Amino acid sequence: MSEERLKVALVGASGYGGGELLRLLLNHPKVEVSIAVSRRLAGEYVFRTHPNLRSRTNLRFSPMELDNIMNETDLVFFSTPHGVSKDLVPKVLESGIKVIDLSADFRLRNPEDYPRWYGWEHPCPDVLKKAVYGIPELHREEIQDANLVACPGCLALSGILELVPIAKAGIIEKEKIIVDSKIGSSGSGESPSPSTHHPERSGVVRPYMPAGHRHTAEIEQELNLFGGEGHKVGLSAHAVDIVRGILSTAHVFPLEPIEMKSLWKVYRGAYRDEPFVRLVRDQKGVYRLADPKVVVGSNFCDISFEVDSHLNRVILCSAIDNLVKGAAGSAVQSMNIIHGWEETLGLELMGFHPV
Amino acid sequence: MSEERLKVALVGASGYGGGELLRLLLNHPKVEVSIAVSRRLAGEYVFRTHPNLRSRTNLRFSPMELDNIMNETDLVFFSTPHGVSKDLVPKVLESGIKVIDLSADFRLRNPEDYPRWYGWEHPCPDVLKKAVYGIPELHREEIQDANLVACPGCLALSGILELVPIAKAGIIEKEKIIVDSKIGSSGSGESPSPSTHHPERSGVVRPYMPAGHRHTAEIEQELNLFGGEGHKVGLSAHAVDIVRGILSTAHVFPLEPIEMKSLWKVYRGAYRDEPFVRLVRDQKGVYRLADPKVVVGSNFCDISFEVDSHLNRVILCSAIDNLVKGAAGSAVQSMNIIHGWEETLGLELMGFHPV
Amino acid sequence: MSEERLKVALVGASGYGGGELLRLLLNHPKVEVSIAVSRRLAGEYVFRTHPNLRSRTNLRFSPMELDNIMNETDLVFFSTPHGVSKDLVPKVLESGIKVIDLSADFRLRNPEDYPRWYGWEHPCPDVLKKAVYGIPELHREEIQDANLVACPGCLALSGILELVPIAKAGIIEKEKIIVDSKIGSSGSGESPSPSTHHPERSGVVRPYMPAGHRHTAEIEQELNLFGGEGHKVGLSAHAVDIVRGILSTAHVFPLEPIEMKSLWKVYRGAYRDEPFVRLVRDQKGVYRLADPKVVVGSNFCDISFEVDSHLNRVILCSAIDNLVKGAAGSAVQSMNIIHGWEETLGLELMGFHPV
Amino acid sequence: MSEERLKVALVGASGYGGGELLRLLLNHPKVEVSIAVSRRLAGEYVFRTHPNLRSRTNLRFSPMELDNIMNETDLVFFSTPHGVSKDLVPKVLESGIKVIDLSADFRLRNPEDYPRWYGWEHPCPDVLKKAVYGIPELHREEIQDANLVACPGCLALSGILELVPIAKAGIIEKEKIIVDSKIGSSGSGESPSPSTHHPERSGVVRPYMPAGHRHTAEIEQELNLFGGEGHKVGLSAHAVDIVRGILSTAHVFPLEPIEMKSLWKVYRGAYRDEPFVRLVRDQKGVYRLADPKVVVGSNFCDISFEVDSHLNRVILCSAIDNLVKGAAGSAVQSMNIIHGWEETLGLELMGFHPV
Repeated sequence: MSEERLKVALVGASGYGGGELLRLLLNHPKVEVSIAVSRRLAGEYVFRTHPNLRSRTNLRFSPMELDNIMNETDLVFFSTPHGVSKDLVPKVLESGIKVIDLSADFRLRNPEDYPRWYGWEHPCPDVLKKAVYGIPELHREEIQDANLVACPGCLALSGILELVPIAKAGIIEKEKIIVDSKIGSSGSGESPSPSTHHPERSGVVRPYMPAGHRHTAEIEQELNLFGGEGHKVGLSAHAVDIVRGILSTAHVFPLEPIEMKSLWKVYRGAYRDEPFVRLVRDQKGVYRLADPKVVVGSNFCDISFEVDSHLNRVILCSAIDNLVKGAAGSAVQSMNIIHGWEETLGLELMGFHPV
Repeated sequence: MSEERLKVALVGASGYGGGELLRLLLNHPKVEVSIAVSRRLAGEYVFRTHPNLRSRTNLRFSPMELDNIMNETDLVFFSTPHGVSKDLVPKVLESGIKVIDLSADFRLRNPEDYPRWYGWEHPCPDVLKKAVYGIPELHREEIQDANLVACPGCLALSGILELVPIAKAGIIEKEKIIVDSKIGSSGSGESPSPSTHHPERSGVVRPYMPAGHRHTAEIEQELNLFGGEGHKVGLSAHAVDIVRGILSTAHVFPLEPIEMKSLWKVYRGAYRDEPFVRLVRDQKGVYRLADPKVVVGSNFCDISFEVDSHLNRVILCSAIDNLVKGAAGSAVQSMNIIHGWEETLGLELMGFHPV
Repeated sequence: MSEERLKVALVGASGYGGGELLRLLLNHPKVEVSIAVSRRLAGEYVFRTHPNLRSRTNLRFSPMELDNIMNETDLVFFSTPHGVSKDLVPKVLESGIKVIDLSADFRLRNPEDYPRWYGWEHPCPDVLKKAVYGIPELHREEIQDANLVACPGCLALSGILELVPIAKAGIIEKEKIIVDSKIGSSGSGESPSPSTHHPERSGVVRPYMPAGHRHTAEIEQELNLFGGEGHKVGLSAHAVDIVRGILSTAHVFPLEPIEMKSLWKVYRGAYRDEPFVRLVRDQKGVYRLADPKVVVGSNFCDISFEVDSHLNRVILCSAIDNLVKGAAGSAVQSMNIIHGWEETLGLELMGFHPV
Repeated sequence: MSEERLKVALVGASGYGGGELLRLLLNHPKVEVSIAVSRRLAGEYVFRTHPNLRSRTNLRFSPMELDNIMNETDLVFFSTPHGVSKDLVPKVLESGIKVIDLSADFRLRNPEDYPRWYGWEHPCPDVLKKAVYGIPELHREEIQDANLVACPGCLALSGILELVPIAKAGIIEKEKIIVDSKIGSSGSGESPSPSTHHPERSGVVRPYMPAGHRHTAEIEQELNLFGGEGHKVGLSAHAVDIVRGILSTAHVFPLEPIEMKSLWKVYRGAYRDEPFVRLVRDQKGVYRLADPKVVVGSNFCDISFEVDSHLNRVILCSAIDNLVKGAAGSAVQSMNIIHGWEETLGLELMGFHPV
């Protein structure tokens, strides 16, 4: 290809988010991966950690050298643990390089939320102010001009995409929003621990965080932004025996009884033209509603909804691959938007069936 | 053993509930399994269908012959599809034989609930009136004198045991009770279908019935009985990739802010002396909260609870083995109570770890 | 794209092989899927059966109308049950259309093998004679000129690719070749049955065919072709609890003690330039040897080898996705070769990790 | 129970073998668990580590204090990592207490095998000489009088029980015995590692040790003992996605063609009266052959066999629960034999279905 490719660096390339970014970026027709940083594995072949990349790349992990990154690349992805990028991003931005951050460090608009949810003061609230929250379906125009995109948390994304349309419509009780999420083991990251040891993690339906999950803050932030202040979200996270995937089941209470056709209107209005959101509600067959099994490996968010007139309740379900739409895929989608490329570039993968 | 054993018959012995009853009854020191009925498999060895019983029994399935059953046995278990036992039980009872029914045919106290939830008129409301709902923790005294015990639905049981104490305490909003349930594939029964075909059923987190599940009726019945009329339950059922087990996560809204110590008081008061209910809320370790992985094969119902003060919400989790506490185990427990035996007899199994 | 695309038909499009062909062909830059035949589902949307294709195609299944196929398409894929294509392929070929057959009907060179292994006389031995066995790594030149390609069985392919190099080298005992294969549930096809019912199929390590597997015939055919007559293969097939994937472990006995460097020479010589065969033997890390987990969704065949000097044994392992390299991927690879396209076209997918 | 119970100590009680011993011993009618040693977890509740034991025992782990053990108990089980018990067992035996060791330290009859397979000189070959290899089916009489029983390795046991009868019959080639084993993740023990991290361990069919497995030594030792010197075993170990269970498929070559009825005679002769060995070879149904799914939680070893006349091969399959028959169950069986109790005491559990 004669056309010059965008040179990108990944910081935190040995983790699962980093590996998925590598998979997507190595296949992206407009990008060249120049640097893949892993302090721990510097010098090692990337394919030893991400075995799916064997024969496709002979890239090795690099040590963390900010100067190199700033001299040789046009865009930096951070896929580092929470609390790392906040100290590095300002320097990168100063050098004129754009940043897409997959960690939590620039997601929350209000600096005061950081001590509360993450336990530290945000060191650069002025930089935070310029960050754009990286959900293209909701912030596409801001992303176009962003220098710093903060990609959403995976559970947060699944809750936000299913809830924002109905919150924006102003038809539900704001203070009683339940999000009951089920997530695969890759969501715990790449470090072994007693709770992710296969004999202990296999076969579980484990309510590992019934209350107090940090992603609550992101969901409420977006609901308040699009639906007005005052939303209260009760997020409960369960570990289930899959590797990839999230299903978030939201239970909300309409202010007035509602019919299915009204919901169709709300959700078609919100997502009709979105390339990566599918409304799934079939009358027959095995796959009538959203299920993460169907979206594994793809950038889709499948959304379903149902009215329970017995209780005056609406049930919403959203299914994503936590490492794609919930992390690396959204990041690439934002990169495409920033550069004015076709938004689906490098993200065409359909998912497999059965898998 | 010189002591004479109780002779029991199983009708519907080839299904998963029937197989689990056989496992428990063949190990029960006071019982002899005389007849195991399967119309479809009459004449076949039982161990061919329930391979775990190989070498332990040479029993064969019998055809359905009510006279034989009434002549030769003291107690009949029905583990038949819904709608079968309602036509057979009255005859059996007339002959003076007691019945424990694992199907839905005698669960609902109000005959009018049958057309609504099951689509048929109940043929013998007078018999229905005498049936006792088979949850020992709530109806132990009635079970002692019962001639007909109607064992609860598996999802219903998991919701009822976690919700009745808090409903009885009168401290939650009655009309906004969410039960988000996750269940293994054995809950679908033993007949192959497109949705249970392994390639299609493996790896799913499938919201197969977001609203309208029949077990809703049972949960509301018991909540109204113990907590006063007016409870409305929103039950949403999800299929997850395990074979056995249910986790039901209930989300309820306290009328006033509540503290953990009050919940401890409510639940200790309800279950302190119960042999098969464990309150699980540990401060450390991998198994801090209820998880069906831990109860597989056992008759335990593990219950956890958490206060979410952010939202003024209480989260309850209950974990059972759907085929044991959710079916055959509760049936055996009721049998023990009826006969004045130690309630835990034949139900001592602890579950395995890891599994 | 202004360039005209090749119009293809799929017969047997509702099965798992057919669905995988659709996934690959819908993404192929040189192909247009004109007709997807399913007698049973004619008129239904394809995405209802293959839910991963939702939003990507609105194609519906067509009835079986050979005239339509012959009038409107340039190439026909058969992904039908064994015994169907043998009666249809001759007519299609007569009309000048090429055929790629994923079933067994034209795989065996010797017509007399059909009564023995499949129980029927081959109706058109003259057509059979012209069929080319569709393993590009072994028959690339013949495929270029083929009108009829018979794609290999999935277990056969995994055994052939790992065994042919060492058989060709003439260094092993010909009559004692063991292939111990482990396969996922998608290999059983899309029809529910008692043995594929999730509760019965989950968690198994089931030796479902210790001897007598039909794919034995294909393996011996290729070993005899490349290594001389007289090979005897003992293939034993086990079902394991994955959906996609095959690991075939071959145990063979060298005529003389052999060293690893000799094996490297044999296998590098055979596959050095092959785009879809990877030799996997790493000194450290978790993925030191071939494992189907790594190739799911991709067209790779990963091969490992080990010398056991204790026993004078060589152990070979090959890992494939049974639906890709073991079926649809090999078929597309052959299609690319026939048309002189880049052999990897439409087959670039890397696989995911972790998954 | 008025009868006095045998007081036992467990050293290494926090591992999976130790936990399974606790499950079995806490249910054993003749035993009292007095001490459960875990250096790492001394003082902690046992049920926090083995959550299935919650509500059944309030035992806490003890520190390692050999004097206490020797003063207060009648029998000691060692379930420690290889290399630990060899330094402790002599002292325990000197005090007149019997030992059942689940580690490898006293399994090999020839002291010279330790440097070769384990890398250390055996410190007490005189004690080693008196150890009895703990497979009741083969060494029942010696176990009756043993002071030290060395329980077999789990893969070794599965290979030995399927191979000894045919080796003893003297009808197979001694130098070409293949054992292709598939094992669940609990076989890796309780310590998290990169290769047992759920995202990496889930979905694998991983040939983790194609050659050189230490259990080879035990299998050859027993084959040589019962079938004469000269057996050579090629053991290849694969990790599959189950938690518990082993299937070992052995491929052997008869010296003369053999028929099924001869095999039946050999295996019935060997195991007809064994309470924990089942010969499984059914003509129909889903569970025609041995499968670990059926034996999980039980002490059974299921064995199947098949003749492949195409190749003059015999295929043997054995299925066990690696933590029961492959560890704690065999240990309890030996304990029962030593004390003259019913051999099946405390081991009556059937396994579940489906699970």
